[in-house]
Amino acid sequence: MSDTAEQELRELVEERVAVVRAKDPAPLAARQAQDIVTFDVLPPLHSRGSEAVEEKTRNWFDSYAGDIGYEVHDLHVAAGEDVGFCSFLYHVSGTLVGGGEVDMWVRATLGCRRRDGRWIITHDHESVPFDPASGRALIDLAP
Amino acid sequence: MSDTAEQELRELVEERVAVVRAKDPAPLAARQAQDIVTFDVLPPLHSRGSEAVEEKTRNWFDSYAGDIGYEVHDLHVAAGEDVGFCSFLYHVSGTLVGGGEVDMWVRATLGCRRRDGRWIITHDHESVPFDPASGRALIDLAP
Repeated sequence: MSDTAEQELRELVEERVAVVRAKDPAPLAARQAQDIVTFDVLPPLHSRGSEAVEEKTRNWFDSYAGDIGYEVHDLHVAAGEDVGFCSFLYHVSGTLVGGGEVDMWVRATLGCRRRDGRWIITHDHESVPFDPASGRALIDLAP
Repeated sequence: MSDTAEQELRELVEERVAVVRAKDPAPLAARQAQDIVTFDVLPPLHSRGSEAVEEKTRNWFDSYAGDIGYEVHDLHVAAGEDVGFCSFLYHVSGTLVGGGEVDMWVRATLGCRRRDGRWIITHDHESVPFDPASGRALIDLAP
């Protein structure tokens, strides 16, 4: 365990919040490993590689008419010298281009490695649970 | 990065597969940190503590009339000396007590720490994606 490394991963999450609010895909992409393994809220089941992530990020930002609300809660971080992970809940909100309102809590886990002295995300898992009785995704759960 | 630690985490996943197939909750519980943070396929949004996990595991095992099929694919492991994480897909299958058939692919991420020389799971995130058009969880996606 390394307190310094844990602080660096907290800063990585803070950077993510700032960058989503600014709708700027470039710093997000710079934090992603080229061989990132992604399990996203939306399909596909899994994807590999940062190109897929960049395109999804751009589409995500473009789908909002204005600002994206993005608040992180319940952040837990574990980090050694070169490997670490973070888990948190985020509250995403805003108005879509099509007019719909988003107001949703999502669970997120980031797997990170330090490469060439810099922490990057090699794994990103984001999801909501589902109700087995109805088969519906539970997008209205709050912590 | 530590090759030995990575191998130990691969063995932790192998143990998990064996234990689920044997429907034995005790070794699973022994691998879980008391303060584990869980983001499960089913509600709630998140939970903390191994008691909640033990009860869920028992209920999960009891819900199957016979064996549980549990196959791990696309395992990726990153580990330093004391902190690591694994991501994989698992295919779960079997017949429920109520008669229904389960045949589903799930994404899983385990966050791990070595405590007192032994790797334990401090974070467990499992999910399926959902279709934003229908609002339905996508339990029939295959890799």
